[in-house]
Amino acid sequence: MLINILQLIGVGVFAASGALAAVRSRLDVFGVAVVGVTTALGGGVIRDVLLGVHPPVALRDWPFLTVAVGVSLAVFWFHPQIAPLRRAMLLADAVGLGLFVTSSTATALAYGVPRYDAWLVGMTVGIGGGVLRDLLLRQIPLVLRREIYALAAMSGGVLVVVGDWLRLPAGPVAVVGSALIVTIRVVALWRRWNAPTARETG
Amino acid sequence: MLINILQLIGVGVFAASGALAAVRSRLDVFGVAVVGVTTALGGGVIRDVLLGVHPPVALRDWPFLTVAVGVSLAVFWFHPQIAPLRRAMLLADAVGLGLFVTSSTATALAYGVPRYDAWLVGMTVGIGGGVLRDLLLRQIPLVLRREIYALAAMSGGVLVVVGDWLRLPAGPVAVVGSALIVTIRVVALWRRWNAPTARETG
Amino acid sequence: MLINILQLIGVGVFAASGALAAVRSRLDVFGVAVVGVTTALGGGVIRDVLLGVHPPVALRDWPFLTVAVGVSLAVFWFHPQIAPLRRAMLLADAVGLGLFVTSSTATALAYGVPRYDAWLVGMTVGIGGGVLRDLLLRQIPLVLRREIYALAAMSGGVLVVVGDWLRLPAGPVAVVGSALIVTIRVVALWRRWNAPTARETG
Repeated sequence: MLINILQLIGVGVFAASGALAAVRSRLDVFGVAVVGVTTALGGGVIRDVLLGVHPPVALRDWPFLTVAVGVSLAVFWFHPQIAPLRRAMLLADAVGLGLFVTSSTATALAYGVPRYDAWLVGMTVGIGGGVLRDLLLRQIPLVLRREIYALAAMSGGVLVVVGDWLRLPAGPVAVVGSALIVTIRVVALWRRWNAPTARETG
Repeated sequence: MLINILQLIGVGVFAASGALAAVRSRLDVFGVAVVGVTTALGGGVIRDVLLGVHPPVALRDWPFLTVAVGVSLAVFWFHPQIAPLRRAMLLADAVGLGLFVTSSTATALAYGVPRYDAWLVGMTVGIGGGVLRDLLLRQIPLVLRREIYALAAMSGGVLVVVGDWLRLPAGPVAVVGSALIVTIRVVALWRRWNAPTARETG
Repeated sequence: MLINILQLIGVGVFAASGALAAVRSRLDVFGVAVVGVTTALGGGVIRDVLLGVHPPVALRDWPFLTVAVGVSLAVFWFHPQIAPLRRAMLLADAVGLGLFVTSSTATALAYGVPRYDAWLVGMTVGIGGGVLRDLLLRQIPLVLRREIYALAAMSGGVLVVVGDWLRLPAGPVAVVGSALIVTIRVVALWRRWNAPTARETG
């Protein structure tokens, strides 16, 4: 069903974001695969650990690993043809964030988790995969940088929760929520929207 | 009851320690909120994952997130008036460590976990939140620095376990244990107590 | 039984790898103990969280913590006599990787987890402890470096799964699988076998 398809696409684009970041860090083919797979499956493993699904679905169903490894290797071999690395990584991260936040929120709701918890779990999952990628590569996590990352994740999750409250179908709502997250992120990066930093200490 | 109140205060001061560290790293308002919330709720999420409570209480009960976000934003807006940042962060970390180690040990005992496990879980939870904060900000975790951190956490946890063995009431014992941890940490920082490092390699 | 003995030896050598890396980073005695214990018990905690064993066995059975702390302290006091630090750390890591991957795969199979999942869980556990050590010490995780790390872990896990499929006894197969992983790692380090890195971006 639609939510599962969105999740699988999310795994693919998050694998691409991890693999692109790893290629930028000049890792070898196994390092690229490890970072790609960790980024792609990390969020789903966190979700299932939080929801008490043992063993996590991302480790149980072979399509997830297959897609994550396949995309990572494809990025490794074909990356110069795809796009300049940094921009491609940021775009893949935005799409992965959108798909993971919304599909995980919807999954948590389907497990009977209350709306407030489902919203928080969804955000944690979406942000978590990217944080694992950035920690492994010893870079500042994207969510801590300037460009409206946490706000984008929050808004997409709220949209899915509101859709559930209005009894709208989960799949299409997740698609719209993902589009909202991607749009906010891309516009924020493009227009260099920044949130305020703290005043200088006296 | 008292243990829950201690936990909520612990969430607040750990949020403050995370937010202060994030302000020092010049993050924007969302980055400060993300680090504050992660530091504040991270330990409790680790505890519930280890004890098999799904979904974690820290993601289920709204007061935790509300306090964590509120304190983080308050630090962001008012920090120059509060105190010099580094010292304030270390003090907040010490209080949070004390409250989390003791309240988590007591919570694990209340779940029927044996004393030895409860002691280890409590230490893991208390230390874990601060480690997440320092990893996100790419700083050396406080627990690995010189000033008697792990020993303070251990001693407070032992006190709670001994109190449970003597059948003393959990709440007051946790208060005393927290005070012990804070005292050890503050005195160690103030007097620059250091543990020995390894001899120079020949 | 044999699998448990292998796990306990794995805890000891992983504790040694963590403690040696911590001594190299000039940490004090508590920092060395924290890194040693985290490296030694981290993998097992990850395994039990993934498999839904609460609380994790590594926090429940005192021999694990005792061995981890004892080995860490022994490394702290006797390290100049043991060996040059970096090489000793890499060897301990290789042995720990071998023992953890194979014993965790065998443990997961014994819990009735399907073979594909058991293989992935085993690899995650074996690699996870070392990644925690390297993240704490802010070093590039060994698994992302050049020398055939992920491939070694994969091959040992496959051997255990194939042995299970052929209904061979788990203990001896795990010993052979560990030897395979250690051999691949040691030869790769010794002969400087490297996997290819991505082509230069045009």
